[in-house]
Amino acid sequence: MAKSWVNSAEVLGADLHLELSGAGSRRAALTRVLREAVRSGRLAPGARLPPYRSLAADLGIARNTVADAYAELVAEGWLTARQGSGTRVAAGTGPTAPVPRRTVPESARRPVHDLTQGRPDPSAFPRAAWLASARRALSAAPHDAFGPGDPRGRVELREALAEYLARTRGARSGPDRIVICSGAAHGLRLLAGVVGRRWAVEAYGLPFHRGLLTSAGAVTTPLAVDAHGAEVAALRRENAVLLTPAHQFPTGGPLGPRRRAAAVEWARAAGGLVVEDDYDGEFRYDRQPVGALQSLDPEMVALLGSVSKSLSPTLRLGWMVLPERLVEPVLAAKGEREQWSSATEQLTLADFLTSGSYDRHVRRMRQRYRRRRDRLTEVLAERAPGVGVSGIAAGLHAVLELPPGTERSVVKAASWQGLAVEGLAGYRHPESTERRDGLVVGYATPTDHGYAAALDALCRALPPGATA
Amino acid sequence: MAKSWVNSAEVLGADLHLELSGAGSRRAALTRVLREAVRSGRLAPGARLPPYRSLAADLGIARNTVADAYAELVAEGWLTARQGSGTRVAAGTGPTAPVPRRTVPESARRPVHDLTQGRPDPSAFPRAAWLASARRALSAAPHDAFGPGDPRGRVELREALAEYLARTRGARSGPDRIVICSGAAHGLRLLAGVVGRRWAVEAYGLPFHRGLLTSAGAVTTPLAVDAHGAEVAALRRENAVLLTPAHQFPTGGPLGPRRRAAAVEWARAAGGLVVEDDYDGEFRYDRQPVGALQSLDPEMVALLGSVSKSLSPTLRLGWMVLPERLVEPVLAAKGEREQWSSATEQLTLADFLTSGSYDRHVRRMRQRYRRRRDRLTEVLAERAPGVGVSGIAAGLHAVLELPPGTERSVVKAASWQGLAVEGLAGYRHPESTERRDGLVVGYATPTDHGYAAALDALCRALPPGATA
Repeated sequence: MAKSWVNSAEVLGADLHLELSGAGSRRAALTRVLREAVRSGRLAPGARLPPYRSLAADLGIARNTVADAYAELVAEGWLTARQGSGTRVAAGTGPTAPVPRRTVPESARRPVHDLTQGRPDPSAFPRAAWLASARRALSAAPHDAFGPGDPRGRVELREALAEYLARTRGARSGPDRIVICSGAAHGLRLLAGVVGRRWAVEAYGLPFHRGLLTSAGAVTTPLAVDAHGAEVAALRRENAVLLTPAHQFPTGGPLGPRRRAAAVEWARAAGGLVVEDDYDGEFRYDRQPVGALQSLDPEMVALLGSVSKSLSPTLRLGWMVLPERLVEPVLAAKGEREQWSSATEQLTLADFLTSGSYDRHVRRMRQRYRRRRDRLTEVLAERAPGVGVSGIAAGLHAVLELPPGTERSVVKAASWQGLAVEGLAGYRHPESTERRDGLVVGYATPTDHGYAAALDALCRALPPGATA
Repeated sequence: MAKSWVNSAEVLGADLHLELSGAGSRRAALTRVLREAVRSGRLAPGARLPPYRSLAADLGIARNTVADAYAELVAEGWLTARQGSGTRVAAGTGPTAPVPRRTVPESARRPVHDLTQGRPDPSAFPRAAWLASARRALSAAPHDAFGPGDPRGRVELREALAEYLARTRGARSGPDRIVICSGAAHGLRLLAGVVGRRWAVEAYGLPFHRGLLTSAGAVTTPLAVDAHGAEVAALRRENAVLLTPAHQFPTGGPLGPRRRAAAVEWARAAGGLVVEDDYDGEFRYDRQPVGALQSLDPEMVALLGSVSKSLSPTLRLGWMVLPERLVEPVLAAKGEREQWSSATEQLTLADFLTSGSYDRHVRRMRQRYRRRRDRLTEVLAERAPGVGVSGIAAGLHAVLELPPGTERSVVKAASWQGLAVEGLAGYRHPESTERRDGLVVGYATPTDHGYAAALDALCRALPPGATA
C-alpha cells in the first residue's frame, strides 16, 4: 500500500514540539493538538493520519502514547478507525461543522492534582447506607408515591427536613413551608422569578449563581465582604439579597451577629427578602455551627439547602424553607404539575435522615474534611509561613491569602506544577472595587495519597517570599 | 373543666347536614366543612372544637368519623391538638391568612370512580426489579458517578437508551445526540427556548404542553386532526411543530405514512423542527408499534420520551434524541452545570433497560392495559352500542365518540355518578374551529375491582340514545 497519509510534521507543526516540551502529559498534549487540528480544519475530514509508529518516530515519543491519543479522539468522535483503512479524520468535523460531536471528557483535560473547590469526596458516598434507605423507602412507600405527586415534594421528606433543620440549624420551618427542588441553584432560579429584579449579592460569590440571577432577568449589585461577611448596611431598595451567613463563600467568614440582625431589619423595612444559601452549614470543625439566619425571622428569610455538599451533587435534591407568602408563588413558578425530583430519591433521603444515616455520614465527613483542613494549615505553617488561611474552620475549602498582585502568577505557577486551583478573581463580582489576592483551595476530593502530592505542588507554586 | 368549646351546631350550621346527607363519605364531608369554616374565619384561630363524642352525638355520626376528620385537619395544619387543651383552630388561619398551610390532599377531593387519563397504574410499579437494578447500579458505579456529571446525562443511560430506542422504536440515535431531562415537559420547555417562537400544535393535545410553550414565549397555532393524525399539509413558516405520531393524543389515530413524509419534507424546506412526543410509543395492542417518525430524518426530528407512562411520572426521567445542531444549544439552555436528573436514578434506569427488566415490565403492562381496553369496548358494545371508540388499540386511554352537543352534559352526569372523566373540550386548542364531542377515558389506574364499578358508572352517564 502506498504511503497515503498526511505528513505529520506538516500538519502538527511547531505547536506540537512546543506543547510536548511542557510539563503536562505527552498523551494529553498530543490529544489536544490533534483535536485542535481537526477542529480548525487543518486536518480535513477523511484525511488519513500517520500510523502510530510513524508519528511516534517523527516526534520522538512512545508508540503507545500516540495510540492512546488516537483512541481518545476516536472515542470523542473526531477520528474514525477502521481495519485496513487506518485512522482518519471523521466526516462532519472541521470549522464549518455546526457542533462538536462530543465534549471533551474530563479525564482528557484533568491536571495531575486537583484542588478546585465545590464537590464533596465522590469516593465517600455512603452507597450501602443509601441503598439500605432506598430498600426501606421503596418497600414502605404507599402506591401513590408512584402516581402524580405534590409539587412541594413528598411530605415524608419535608417532615424529615423540618426536624433535621430545626435540630441542626435552628431553622423555624415545618413541612408546609418547605418546597423540594433540584438543588439550591434550582431554588435560586425559582426565587429570582418571583421576588423582583434588584438583587444584592456578596462581592465574592459563585459566578454560577450570579449568572443564574442575570439570566432570570435580575440585576445584581455587589456588597463588600470582610471577615464578618457581607456589609449588609449598604442594602437599600433591593428586592432581595443573597447571603452565605454560615460561612461566606468563598472568603470564609461567618456573618456577624449585628449584621444578621441588620439583614433581617432591612428586609422588614424595605419589604425585601434575605436568601440564605446554607451551602455547607453542616461542616464546621471548631465548634457548633452558627444557627441559620432564617431562625431570626422565617417570614423575611428564605433558607436554601441541598445534599450537594454533604452527600453528592448528582442526587439533585435540595430544599427551600420559604416565608409563607412565597410558597404559592414559588410553586406556580416551579410548575404545579412538576416535581423535578424523583419521588423514590425523595423517600430515600427521608429515610436516610430519619434513620440517623445522614447524621452518621455528616459526622464521618466532618472528621475527614477537618483532618484535610488541619493538614493544609500544618503544611502551610511549615513550608509557607507567610501565607495566611482566612475564614473559619469549616466547609470543603479554604482561602489562602496572597501578597497583593501575586494571585495570577501563583495560579499560573500552580498550573505548571500540574495543579488545578482557582484564584479569588474568578469569584469577584465584576462591579466590585475590592481587590484581594488569594487562592480558593478545595480539599475534599483528592485521595489521601494524592492530597499530599497536591499540597506539595501547591507549596511549590506559592510566591518565594511566602515560603520558608 | 367548664364546657369551653364552640357550639357545634352553630359553627357548622346547615351546611353540614346538607353535606352529610350526600353520597360521599361522611368523614370527607365533615373534613371539608370544617376546613371551610376555618378558612372563612367562621371558626377563629384558638377556638376550641367540641370533643369527638359531643360533635358525633350532635350530628348523629360515629365518633371515629369525627376523630378522623380532626386528625386530617391537624395534619393539614388547620387545627392543633394538645393533650389537656383539646382540639383548637390553629393560629395563622382564617381569611386574612396569606396562604393556605397545605393544599387539600387529593384524597379529600377524589370522586368515587376515576377514569381521568395521564398516569400509569401506580400499584404496578415494579419495586423489586427497580430495587435490584438500583443495587446493581450503585455497586457498579464508578466514583465519578457521585461527582459533577455530564450535563447530557450519564453515558451508561444514553447508551442503553440508544439501543432500546433503535430496537423498539427504530430511532436513529446514539449516546452523543441523547440528552437526559426531567421528563418530556422539561425537554419541550428546553426546545421552546432554542428553536423559535412560532409553533404549530395539534388542535387536540395536552393543554399543559401548550401552556409550557406559551409561558416560554411561543405562539401556538392549531393543526386540524383527523383519523390519520394532524393535517401537516397546513404547515407554513412555523419554527416547529409538536406532533404525537405514534398515537395522536388524545384522539388516538397514528400519523399516516404520507403525512409522516410530508412533515419531514416541511421541516427540510422550511428549516423547521418536528418535535415527536412519543409519550406512549410502547403501548400498542393490536400489532407492533409504528416506528418513530424520527427515523425518517434524525436531523429534522427531535424525539421526546420518558418513563412517565411506562414506569412512573415520579421518577422524573425523560430523554431527547436531538438533531446534532441542537445538542449544544439545548445543553446551554439546560444549564451546563446542571443535570436535573439524579445520577443514581439514571444508572438504575440504565441497568433496568440493559437487564431486560424494562422489556418485561412493558410486556406485563401491555397485557394489563390491553385487557382494560378490551373490557371497555366489550362493556360499551353491550350497554352503549351507539358509542364508538375512536383511534387505535394503544395507550392508556380511549376516546368515546359522543353525539354532537352532548359532551358537557355527559361529563356532568358522570360527576353525579361520582365518576371523574374528562371531555375532549379541555384538550382543544382555543383557536381551533373543530368541534367534536367525546370522552377521554383513562383505564390505567383503577383497581380491578374498581374498574368494573367505574365502567358501570360510565355507562349510566352516557346519553340515553347511546345506551342499549
